[in-house]
Amino acid sequence: MKIYISGPEVFLENAVEVLEAKRKLCEVYGHEGLTPFDTNIEEIVPTWSCGYRIGLANEALMNVCDVVISNITPFRGISADPGTVYEIGYARAKGKRVFAYSYDTRSHEERIKAYYGGKTEPDGKGFERGVEDRLTIENFKMWENLMIDAGVAESGGSVQIVLNPKGPSDFGWIAGFEICLKHLSGVIV
Amino acid sequence: MKIYISGPEVFLENAVEVLEAKRKLCEVYGHEGLTPFDTNIEEIVPTWSCGYRIGLANEALMNVCDVVISNITPFRGISADPGTVYEIGYARAKGKRVFAYSYDTRSHEERIKAYYGGKTEPDGKGFERGVEDRLTIENFKMWENLMIDAGVAESGGSVQIVLNPKGPSDFGWIAGFEICLKHLSGVIV
Repeated sequence: MKIYISGPEVFLENAVEVLEAKRKLCEVYGHEGLTPFDTNIEEIVPTWSCGYRIGLANEALMNVCDVVISNITPFRGISADPGTVYEIGYARAKGKRVFAYSYDTRSHEERIKAYYGGKTEPDGKGFERGVEDRLTIENFKMWENLMIDAGVAESGGSVQIVLNPKGPSDFGWIAGFEICLKHLSGVIV
Repeated sequence: MKIYISGPEVFLENAVEVLEAKRKLCEVYGHEGLTPFDTNIEEIVPTWSCGYRIGLANEALMNVCDVVISNITPFRGISADPGTVYEIGYARAKGKRVFAYSYDTRSHEERIKAYYGGKTEPDGKGFERGVEDRLTIENFKMWENLMIDAGVAESGGSVQIVLNPKGPSDFGWIAGFEICLKHLSGVIV
């Protein structure tokens, strides 16, 4: 199967190295990995039109894949990288199978509560809310916003949580990607 | 046209009120608004299966809509609500027209730099990076991660930035939604 490799590791200084390692892992399990860099865009320049072309090229790569495997480890905050989340929604709507993994072992609810630093309170209607902003704290026993967990599950994939000894921000670690590959390939069921 | 009303205002204490106000605005412009609450889920309980059912119900609502209008104002951090971003990717892949608005007038790049509190430096290859985490700071002159700006533009919609006098966190304000409605309806071109 063709697998689109999705996640914020494109922002790493050694992004190419990490993505090539994942591509090789795909081969080990009998699949073909495509990375967000597999486009015909020769030069990355800081313009809107370049960003636009990258976005459309990445959509085109997903279109030819059967599966998307996304790193949803919280990125610069308490939630997954928004580019990765877009790709999960896109792939789900295109009927692709989507697997996701995170190196943060806290639930979505726990991460939101950490964001509020304990300043939450029950609203008397079944939800906790931030004391100051009065926003609902989702408590569906999920790993991310419900759209992501629901879409991934319904696509035939799953969310895998993997404890990284180096901590959740070690985006270059590829063990989570391999766990998803194992599930996809029936090595783990 | 049928419009799916997407954004983090579902988390507000007065979510129903805000969403009904947006639905009425849709009618003013000759459209039909659908909200994420327009499902047949009678009771919201804190279980995975309830979250799953909500997610699939919201996908089904988008499926019957022609247009999605999303509030991408940064939510609990420097980026849009991940549920909203998922919906943008999903709608884009389904061929819907997607409009987005934000009440934060800073670019994506400016918000990321604020996240680093000035601790960024050029990497000598055209990008700035966080000094500590060495992650690329996207600089494509866009409002969000490039997947979102590119997908919205290619769908036939646009990203609208609206200065809210009360500040960007006033998620109940509906002026940004109306600006998108005006663009959709040809009142602004």
